[in-house]
Amino acid sequence: MSALIGILTVSDRASRGEYADEGGPAIRTYLAEVLASAWEAHERIVPDDLDTIASTILELSAAGCCLVVTTGGTGPAPRDVTPEATERVCTKLLPGFGELMRKVSLEKVPTAILSRQTAGICGRTLVVNLPGRPKSIRECLDGVFPAIPYCIDLIHTGVADAPRLDTRPERLVAFRPKS
Amino acid sequence: MSALIGILTVSDRASRGEYADEGGPAIRTYLAEVLASAWEAHERIVPDDLDTIASTILELSAAGCCLVVTTGGTGPAPRDVTPEATERVCTKLLPGFGELMRKVSLEKVPTAILSRQTAGICGRTLVVNLPGRPKSIRECLDGVFPAIPYCIDLIHTGVADAPRLDTRPERLVAFRPKS
Amino acid sequence: MSALIGILTVSDRASRGEYADEGGPAIRTYLAEVLASAWEAHERIVPDDLDTIASTILELSAAGCCLVVTTGGTGPAPRDVTPEATERVCTKLLPGFGELMRKVSLEKVPTAILSRQTAGICGRTLVVNLPGRPKSIRECLDGVFPAIPYCIDLIHTGVADAPRLDTRPERLVAFRPKS
Repeated sequence: MSALIGILTVSDRASRGEYADEGGPAIRTYLAEVLASAWEAHERIVPDDLDTIASTILELSAAGCCLVVTTGGTGPAPRDVTPEATERVCTKLLPGFGELMRKVSLEKVPTAILSRQTAGICGRTLVVNLPGRPKSIRECLDGVFPAIPYCIDLIHTGVADAPRLDTRPERLVAFRPKS
Repeated sequence: MSALIGILTVSDRASRGEYADEGGPAIRTYLAEVLASAWEAHERIVPDDLDTIASTILELSAAGCCLVVTTGGTGPAPRDVTPEATERVCTKLLPGFGELMRKVSLEKVPTAILSRQTAGICGRTLVVNLPGRPKSIRECLDGVFPAIPYCIDLIHTGVADAPRLDTRPERLVAFRPKS
Repeated sequence: MSALIGILTVSDRASRGEYADEGGPAIRTYLAEVLASAWEAHERIVPDDLDTIASTILELSAAGCCLVVTTGGTGPAPRDVTPEATERVCTKLLPGFGELMRKVSLEKVPTAILSRQTAGICGRTLVVNLPGRPKSIRECLDGVFPAIPYCIDLIHTGVADAPRLDTRPERLVAFRPKS
């Protein structure tokens, strides 16, 4: 069984077709590079609208995605509301993801502190906000991805046929404690 | 007067006696090692139930504990609700504790970002969430304990006969600004 | 057009005149040192009262301040409520500011984790909480100020005649991405 992964691009301009989405393809390329286990992408492009982002995360979760990765809408501008949408649909927040992603980005650029990206759990789905720029997406994923497969295991505690992500260890080592 | 310190183990299995509590004893050993001033422990073991955790923190606070340290229940699994219980009973949150504990743990293991541990103030009580594993408990306490005695002083601003924690400086130096 | 900057000292004792405000003047001196563009300060001193702090931030925002910097009231003592007032009036929070300021302060003193300082956006105004002590104010501002001018640009996305802050690059380099 393939693991389902939602890739959600949040961008007014990309959703109107005024601009080619670069964030979504960058995430897809990254996942293809690091994942060794079977997976399938559910891709969506939506405008920077809180209700639309929230309902799309819920839809991807209901469709069985164990992971939903968003790109865009995490800054301080008035239209940036991806973290608010994420907080609205998640029952648990994981502040360590945002802290680590800002720390990683801060080594490159001082405006990393303007990013409000977070992560949380919506049902059986881990939701992770990423920035919009492909280069920053890779840096952030290199930081947090080692913890994602085990997080998905934990979210599915007690669930039969739980999805499992395995990485190509020569590219990225995912950590699972020996139990 | 001895300072009262609550040690609260949160674990379904330990509370049912299926499993020996290791977190609580690890905290007790640590405190015995670092504290030079008189103290007395109030120990509790409760299941991973939000209402029970919250009411036990309130009970320990009402009993006069200046510090309540929890162990367990801080991860992303469905039954992990210790941070939610802590946030429910605290009027002030101290995000710096969780940030520093995750930073310290991240030097050991990439899944440290999955920990949602926090700290806050409930009445005149500082509540600090720790992980479940004894080794991680020590690492986290070594990180945050230097700030705890002064925090307890500040919580008791204007209170007569306030509790005071002093550490063995050869083991751990607690910081108090010269006033 | 001068940019308007609010400097808000939060202190029971300074507001009663029992004690000379040191935080406000330290912020003013810092801004005079780093800013190359025209600016004008709106200064206020208020007690540690949640409603008063919140309404003063709203008043400074309504007066057109693009930035309001507070000093004091960010600790764990019962009267410290500046972060709560900031959260009440802001529609977006920027956790990266507090994380970085605590990280910078933690290099100096372990009690930095007791600071609950945050930042957020109230209307078209960036609100940043700073500690009370002049030395810590400078350290925190050196950490976060490089991101402030671009943050103010982003808050004013689509606004004509938006304020613009420019720094003296020999003293502090503000980062704006090449667009």
